[in-house]
Amino acid sequence: MLARRFLSSASSSLAPTIRQLLASPPQPSAASVTVNGWVKSIRRQKKVAFAVISDGSSDTGLQAVFTDVNLAKHLTNGASVRLQGTLADSPGAGQEKELKVSDAEVLGACDPETYPMQKQALTVEYLRDHCHLRPRTREIGAMLRLRDTTTRAIHEYFHDNGFVHIHTPIITSNDCEGAGETFRIAPSASDPSIPSALDAKPSEYFGHPAYLTVSSQLHLEAAASAISRVYTLSPCFRAERSQTSRHLAEFWMLEGEWAFTSSVTEVCDVAEHAVRHVLRTHASSPDMDALWKQHPSEAKRAELQAYADASQPWTRLTYTEAIEVLAKHHAQTPGGAFVFPPAWGSSLQSEHERWLADTHVRGPVFVTDYPASLKPFYMRVNDNSEPGRETVACFDLLVPGMGELVGGSLREERVELLEAALDRHGLDKADYEWYLDLRRYGGAPHGGFGLGFERLISWMSGIESVRECIAMPRWAGRMLL
Amino acid sequence: MLARRFLSSASSSLAPTIRQLLASPPQPSAASVTVNGWVKSIRRQKKVAFAVISDGSSDTGLQAVFTDVNLAKHLTNGASVRLQGTLADSPGAGQEKELKVSDAEVLGACDPETYPMQKQALTVEYLRDHCHLRPRTREIGAMLRLRDTTTRAIHEYFHDNGFVHIHTPIITSNDCEGAGETFRIAPSASDPSIPSALDAKPSEYFGHPAYLTVSSQLHLEAAASAISRVYTLSPCFRAERSQTSRHLAEFWMLEGEWAFTSSVTEVCDVAEHAVRHVLRTHASSPDMDALWKQHPSEAKRAELQAYADASQPWTRLTYTEAIEVLAKHHAQTPGGAFVFPPAWGSSLQSEHERWLADTHVRGPVFVTDYPASLKPFYMRVNDNSEPGRETVACFDLLVPGMGELVGGSLREERVELLEAALDRHGLDKADYEWYLDLRRYGGAPHGGFGLGFERLISWMSGIESVRECIAMPRWAGRMLL
Repeated sequence: MLARRFLSSASSSLAPTIRQLLASPPQPSAASVTVNGWVKSIRRQKKVAFAVISDGSSDTGLQAVFTDVNLAKHLTNGASVRLQGTLADSPGAGQEKELKVSDAEVLGACDPETYPMQKQALTVEYLRDHCHLRPRTREIGAMLRLRDTTTRAIHEYFHDNGFVHIHTPIITSNDCEGAGETFRIAPSASDPSIPSALDAKPSEYFGHPAYLTVSSQLHLEAAASAISRVYTLSPCFRAERSQTSRHLAEFWMLEGEWAFTSSVTEVCDVAEHAVRHVLRTHASSPDMDALWKQHPSEAKRAELQAYADASQPWTRLTYTEAIEVLAKHHAQTPGGAFVFPPAWGSSLQSEHERWLADTHVRGPVFVTDYPASLKPFYMRVNDNSEPGRETVACFDLLVPGMGELVGGSLREERVELLEAALDRHGLDKADYEWYLDLRRYGGAPHGGFGLGFERLISWMSGIESVRECIAMPRWAGRMLL
Repeated sequence: MLARRFLSSASSSLAPTIRQLLASPPQPSAASVTVNGWVKSIRRQKKVAFAVISDGSSDTGLQAVFTDVNLAKHLTNGASVRLQGTLADSPGAGQEKELKVSDAEVLGACDPETYPMQKQALTVEYLRDHCHLRPRTREIGAMLRLRDTTTRAIHEYFHDNGFVHIHTPIITSNDCEGAGETFRIAPSASDPSIPSALDAKPSEYFGHPAYLTVSSQLHLEAAASAISRVYTLSPCFRAERSQTSRHLAEFWMLEGEWAFTSSVTEVCDVAEHAVRHVLRTHASSPDMDALWKQHPSEAKRAELQAYADASQPWTRLTYTEAIEVLAKHHAQTPGGAFVFPPAWGSSLQSEHERWLADTHVRGPVFVTDYPASLKPFYMRVNDNSEPGRETVACFDLLVPGMGELVGGSLREERVELLEAALDRHGLDKADYEWYLDLRRYGGAPHGGFGLGFERLISWMSGIESVRECIAMPRWAGRMLL
């Protein structure tokens, strides 16, 4: 509320965007307005010309009507323009208002012959090659606005639930997932100006090897052992070789971590509520409308909203139960249903995950309590585990059409069990003294989860590949700009 | 408003934090409540014990009163506990409510003999060495919450003014500032699984050299040429050798960029409004109270608020005017006022910047229109420049006690002048073809600014070094966790 009080004085001196102009048209309606933007299309007739002008503030832009066709003479697709005119009710379909242009100025010309963003459909690959220009397409523009509104919904959810946003470090010395797929920071060349603290290893800027973070979790755990509820939306990096539609070398991850939670059910609850909140805030979203309209099965959008509004919690299965239903389905299907026969102790394959969410549950499903051997060292061993078949208090959230969207767990807070897990995973305890300290000194039962932000955008928008779910994607062999 | 509608269903199943509990005590007041947290202090008398419990949700925590002293027997500083009891009006000073404890459980013990976070004052250096535990100190806890509320105020300001938040890339091939202080991503070892796209240069994951970004500006310019108003709060990296209280190797930067602006005055306006908005939302902030109370000159906090509330825009001087007043002051001071004599064409030194803000203006001051030779290639050359004394349409915002807080400019949108600037700065035009494209195809006059987030936190909180203004600081020779 405090912020609102000052809103008027906090609004800038900038001219209104098209979205702002249409949200609150000027009074009186005959007042002259200025519209800045780019020409998206132009249609010339003998006595009138029409142009769609976009400033990127909304999916639709604004239709400009030139009764003096001379004013439109220099307008071409892609040119940036400043138009003066009055807003009037539009007789055409698809828009409430249009601009009757009284003056037009081209600010930046755009040669229609050489402009790389031609009007005909451009391939996904062509647009990836032109990723400095592709925000000008309708799809990427809508996706960028969808990231913005999704980010805000995430902040809103965590703030309303008492979480504090933490900026966790990008450069780190640890490899949280232990997968070895990290990018290393290159040592700087030997440099006489390097401070003396570095003398021992003059080739390293930090004095020891440095990597790009693969997850903020361990750092969040340190914060959660003081602030108790923390989260971050932060870049993460994996030097994966996977060339799939679900992997990027640089991606954003939402991670929440909180103390004083003792059941994986509660961790699932928070993840579910957070995702539902994001979906609900987009129940009415012109950008999602625009994106789904281009999708072969537009009806899937309604399913998304049904998941958000479901009166029951999303389905939860243990890993053991999941293996049972998978194995049964595999056995009952002539020739077998899966390439990989489901078996307790083996990872769930993509084909298994997709079948569980798409066919068996037909909705989001939490699979919990995986075998310890399949999961990272930090997950809490279940108290009721059978010897030899230890499970950990964790979950993966699988969603239709996508597979894994969120992963989370309780974290092992018992020092001896954590030390044993480090040994079992072949990790050097000396590197984790600080992490053990969090348990030694007032450690509390705690847990959290991580959600791949680009996967969420892909799931919400129907955009097939995560490479179209981020402004400037990076993957093996590809890093433009 | 949409989000609000769903708030109740979006709130999680988590128990209330201490802050939430104190903000809306249970009805009836005799209802039992559960409080989770860490023991900050404990005082035992014969028939009663008092403990301060913090869960990090607020600066003050909650006083717990044990009329059964046995319940407090195992409580030690740093231990994590779960208390049951009732909230009652507190007779003591400094808190409205206290918890009358009916049951207590130690969740995680903390040996007071070995606990690194002893009650006596710990040095800044000691805390830097224990950065996994220092969020437990009052100062770092308050700073982390201040970062959270400042982040929210920033998002609020930009959202309310029609800006779209963009996640700009961290890994990049460009060096925006041209200072050469970049971290390089280490090439991966030769690996047979590297995709064939990399065959040409098998030692590079991306096929060509990759760096950590020093600024998101160039990427934001690409987005702003379609979305027109964009901003980011993103990590930046500089492999600086500076070991000052104002420099980090990894820091966060707020950057705004927007199209259709043609005057540096307007860029200054937006920066000023944004900073004022952040200060105003903190006019009443328990965390800022706590931080300033420890500061030698607590009165400076009132000055901050005065800057926010000033009825006049902040002072603006051109660089040329600034040099004149500096030179005059230098000449009039016996022996000279500065180590570096002020001279047109030379950089403003820290001593100059501090004198301008602290003494001459006694408030924030924009210095605009620096010589082109002192600034990066992308700044727009002023139309009215004298030949041989070209200036660029830029500004630095200098603030008392700090120096430079924000820097911004109009960006050169004229292709030929931009190409000439690239040449002048010895940059390879081939690397900037994409950046030139933004001008070739519907380029619009545009500008923006960057604000060092840790400097803002330092300025707002009175915390002297930026190393205490981020959870896990990294600088030359130092990178823990």
